[in-house]
Amino acid sequence: MLVKDAGEFGLIGRIRDLLPVQPSSVIVGVGDDVAVLDVSGPEYLVATCDAQVEGVHFARGQIDPYRLGRKTAAVNISDVAAVGGAPQWALVSLAIPDSTETDFVENLYRGMCDELAAAGAAIVGGNVARLDSGIAVDFILLGKVAPAHLVLRRGARPGDAIMITGFPGESRAGLELVRRPGLKIPKEARERVLARHFAPKPRLREGQALARSGLVHAMIDVSDGLLADLAHICRASGAGAEIHAEKLPVSPAASSVAQAAGKDVLDWVLSGGEDYELLFAADGSDAAGIRSLLDDAAGAGCFEIGRITGRTGEVRVVLKEGEDILYTADTRGWDHFGGARQ
Amino acid sequence: MLVKDAGEFGLIGRIRDLLPVQPSSVIVGVGDDVAVLDVSGPEYLVATCDAQVEGVHFARGQIDPYRLGRKTAAVNISDVAAVGGAPQWALVSLAIPDSTETDFVENLYRGMCDELAAAGAAIVGGNVARLDSGIAVDFILLGKVAPAHLVLRRGARPGDAIMITGFPGESRAGLELVRRPGLKIPKEARERVLARHFAPKPRLREGQALARSGLVHAMIDVSDGLLADLAHICRASGAGAEIHAEKLPVSPAASSVAQAAGKDVLDWVLSGGEDYELLFAADGSDAAGIRSLLDDAAGAGCFEIGRITGRTGEVRVVLKEGEDILYTADTRGWDHFGGARQ
Repeated sequence: MLVKDAGEFGLIGRIRDLLPVQPSSVIVGVGDDVAVLDVSGPEYLVATCDAQVEGVHFARGQIDPYRLGRKTAAVNISDVAAVGGAPQWALVSLAIPDSTETDFVENLYRGMCDELAAAGAAIVGGNVARLDSGIAVDFILLGKVAPAHLVLRRGARPGDAIMITGFPGESRAGLELVRRPGLKIPKEARERVLARHFAPKPRLREGQALARSGLVHAMIDVSDGLLADLAHICRASGAGAEIHAEKLPVSPAASSVAQAAGKDVLDWVLSGGEDYELLFAADGSDAAGIRSLLDDAAGAGCFEIGRITGRTGEVRVVLKEGEDILYTADTRGWDHFGGARQ
Repeated sequence: MLVKDAGEFGLIGRIRDLLPVQPSSVIVGVGDDVAVLDVSGPEYLVATCDAQVEGVHFARGQIDPYRLGRKTAAVNISDVAAVGGAPQWALVSLAIPDSTETDFVENLYRGMCDELAAAGAAIVGGNVARLDSGIAVDFILLGKVAPAHLVLRRGARPGDAIMITGFPGESRAGLELVRRPGLKIPKEARERVLARHFAPKPRLREGQALARSGLVHAMIDVSDGLLADLAHICRASGAGAEIHAEKLPVSPAASSVAQAAGKDVLDWVLSGGEDYELLFAADGSDAAGIRSLLDDAAGAGCFEIGRITGRTGEVRVVLKEGEDILYTADTRGWDHFGGARQ
């Protein structure tokens, strides 16, 4: 079988099946966005890595090295934020053609450094290697989280409210403008969605405030798409979910791009990916308190978009009364070997 | 300026120059083979990463995926061994064409798992991404080391004996056989040098025994070549070194390959690279004790090959009385953007 037939999650499943039992020091291991490790200190160690590959994740003509550096760091910071952690140390493994300008490399690192500094972290090591076909940056981020504050994908309970920070779908709208730069979109909306695509802001303070509150049962950052990541929470929690379409936060900027492109903005909101918003489950009775603490901590809003259900593994979107669609991994979401399926 | 003109160490120097001051939690930071981090626990965290890129570090037709997996893990274990650490957790960031057989990927991971298991460590996370041009495996290894046992590159003192475990140059002899398979070499020698090239054994027990002994002032694993790595020790220690050619351990197997190839085996011993032996400095009066403890801990031998000197940054090889060569990074050693220079 080929990797493209197995798909990203099929491949990860095969890898997971052949690994030995995880040592007892591993609180969260393979299959999650982060590993959580007991280093015998007062806090757990959080470790994550994510690669940006030229021609797959970015095109060199579309993003300058500084912004590429910031984004590379940001997507990893987002993973640490989603467990309530504090980023500390980064390793950068860079593979590049030897015909690359050193300026490009230096600006890439400047971007990573600035994004890390804003998150209280720093580059402490790494590696450089030659890669003839293009640039690949592998970014490894280590952080800390107090055991009492750790929030995982697992832990959502039937009846919980499902909440999300900010507006998913905007990054996907930005991608549409990259692909179709000729679309006529008001300048402000154009700039907003492009910034969301090229310069995502990880929800670090929000993640930490949510984790410290003790009110959040399960959390993930939305990188694969709202529904795909919600499905991760459901699978890990042994639960299902129901999203109410009319409650979804739909950004006017994303709407204007979708309209001009002749696309359904709801698809982008549900399955766009690269949103780096936090998606979490909590008691519905705590929703007001959570909105207030997010506003205090980061001036951020959040939206209640549905409920966790007892129908294990089933993620359903209620479009309007009596009209549902059932999410399955085959028809929606983002798979790195399958591309966007929409 | 292009990366190929700056060279690997020039590029790393430029990157280091633009990084902010390292946080106080960083015991060893950018520029070393490992980062050593204070995680507020009883032991320091050791973190290292190293990439294996198809077409640069390996050719798919020359090494099977299981051995590639073992080697990928082994070179990182060697880095942790060189500071006296104990490997614990690995993250694997894999970038592959989607036309790769899943069998290949599974055997790669089996190799990594087996090598890690032998070192007491396990894969706990990672990432998979698409890379159209070939396979790139980025391997991140985390380990622990007691602060009292940490041994670094810095710390060598003028007058120290320079010692090395085992026979450098054999891996380079194996590479020669890969390039020139028609060379007529006795079977045993052929198998030995090929195994040293494709299946290096990290000196983990040796590194830990040396570190715990408290007798070693500075240590590094030989990946770039004996002289290049000795130069790293000298630079970090503000010292120089003098190697006596007649004391160098020259493997009969490597000699037979060099002879058949019409090459000077001394070049391979001094600059071959990928040896994964431990090179260290200690009081000459402790040399016998060190040999004994290495024999007890791992049944391993070691050789005293020269002296640390006070001539900062100068690495000199005494070929015979009155005939010296001076090592400089420009003429010897391994540079990932320049290739082997010999």
